[in-house]
Amino acid sequence: MPYLPPSVELREVGLRDGLQLEQPIPLRAKLELLEAVVATGVRRVEATSFVSPKAVPALADAEELAGELERWPGVHFSALVAGTGGARRAVAAGMPNLEYVVSASESHSLANARRGTDQAVAAVADIAALAHGAGGECEVIIAVAWDCPFDGRTPADRVVDIARRAVALGADRLCLGDTIGTTVPARVVALVEAVRAACPGIDVGVHFHNTRGSGLACVLAAAQIGVTRIDASVGGLGGCPFAPGATGNIATEDVVYLLEESGVSTGLDLDRVLAAAAVAERALGRPLTTSNVYRAGGRSRPLGPQG
Amino acid sequence: MPYLPPSVELREVGLRDGLQLEQPIPLRAKLELLEAVVATGVRRVEATSFVSPKAVPALADAEELAGELERWPGVHFSALVAGTGGARRAVAAGMPNLEYVVSASESHSLANARRGTDQAVAAVADIAALAHGAGGECEVIIAVAWDCPFDGRTPADRVVDIARRAVALGADRLCLGDTIGTTVPARVVALVEAVRAACPGIDVGVHFHNTRGSGLACVLAAAQIGVTRIDASVGGLGGCPFAPGATGNIATEDVVYLLEESGVSTGLDLDRVLAAAAVAERALGRPLTTSNVYRAGGRSRPLGPQG
Repeated sequence: MPYLPPSVELREVGLRDGLQLEQPIPLRAKLELLEAVVATGVRRVEATSFVSPKAVPALADAEELAGELERWPGVHFSALVAGTGGARRAVAAGMPNLEYVVSASESHSLANARRGTDQAVAAVADIAALAHGAGGECEVIIAVAWDCPFDGRTPADRVVDIARRAVALGADRLCLGDTIGTTVPARVVALVEAVRAACPGIDVGVHFHNTRGSGLACVLAAAQIGVTRIDASVGGLGGCPFAPGATGNIATEDVVYLLEESGVSTGLDLDRVLAAAAVAERALGRPLTTSNVYRAGGRSRPLGPQG
Repeated sequence: MPYLPPSVELREVGLRDGLQLEQPIPLRAKLELLEAVVATGVRRVEATSFVSPKAVPALADAEELAGELERWPGVHFSALVAGTGGARRAVAAGMPNLEYVVSASESHSLANARRGTDQAVAAVADIAALAHGAGGECEVIIAVAWDCPFDGRTPADRVVDIARRAVALGADRLCLGDTIGTTVPARVVALVEAVRAACPGIDVGVHFHNTRGSGLACVLAAAQIGVTRIDASVGGLGGCPFAPGATGNIATEDVVYLLEESGVSTGLDLDRVLAAAAVAERALGRPLTTSNVYRAGGRSRPLGPQG
């Protein structure tokens, strides 16, 4: 077997990436989901984003949510931001661990952030300073790192260049996002290794969608080259409303099943992840169809080690 | 990147494993699907099974189907059998390439074949002789090779022992079946390597279900250790009727996407696989929901090589 790390650190993104395109749910329901998520054992949670409430009404309660997080002191909470304004709001709300998204393609950057990639990268300096000034850290997430819905394949050189500049401007860590769910293992390995080579000593995480079914294979490939920071969404929350039937984020329970059964410790309890998925399902009021383990169950019965 | 082979050989199992639990469809519809499947470029097709028409009414037309296969002379067609009687029927119908299933667990063997594993293995001699006498080959598929719904984890020693005996009795090749879709990459590698060590020179293929989302990760892991015979089902045909929402066979188009985008040649054309999935969808008269690439599309637009 190719190398696998003894453990990885999952980041639960269901509360943010999972809910952002859904009809808004009450803060009370989010807190119930958070409680269930924290009970899984996960220690990194992307809790919300500080973006325009008009653009993302489902996360308009970011400040209120942030005010409740002190009840879970052992958890590293982070907030996604799209610019300096959001970063100020997050820090003011007591969430100094920021994830700042930069789109690797010019068209995606213009469509999503109304500015080109260069301008978006330049803002890392201020956002990192805000995070650091408040005792937090700044992760730069490079979106459409492999493919862009408008520009096609993203040149790897572009991603490497953004990564290098982001680190120079103060980013503490990086994450590569397969925003439209098109990448595959060989491309994951090639890009992660290129970014690592350009940014020695900087941790590179991954964020996959299972849109074309390759999400877990990409997790495996990333783990094989020692990537230990992996995003996942409980219940597979986060289907894309523009592609009915297409799946969104890889499901936390699918990742936990894959890795734990392969001998890689995640620190999460599968039964509790399934319980959290049930809470998410109740909160949304519709069946979660994109998580495989949630639909099928972990296994037919508890099984001992294979002889 | 860990090793990947330059090419693999997929076996299309949609016509057999995919249809066996469905309501019977007319022979005409099967031939239309076969035409579409052959047009994908696949050169190995599991076309039907010769089993009890009472137990599997959807494949009761095995003889009639077999009579039509000469129209595709370049394709290696095989038929699944559950015993000597079925093997005789297959050979008489002009299908000498046999796949004979042996359940690795005693309980599954008793439930599915009404005899224990030892008795089932002993029949390999006659079935292989029938295949060879008719100019064909005999593959032994070891079912529930990793886990059994009744007995829990299948001891690897049991699988290795069955494999060794099957080869001694005349099996030309082996296939390991993850019948209930519970295995994961590390277990795939361990078992394939154990069987290979016990049966040098014998080709070992794999048959995965995506029930818990790990199917494509298992394909990747198998390919990394040089497994080049992989079963897949167009459109993901083959959902389990006892687990609503659970997925069945891994979808041919998902495997083709994963491998081709990773630089591994399958010989199949993705667009034609998607066209075949559309034919399958029309034949069944309901949406195919378990194929990711079929739902999402190959990509948003044709893309050149990544820079």
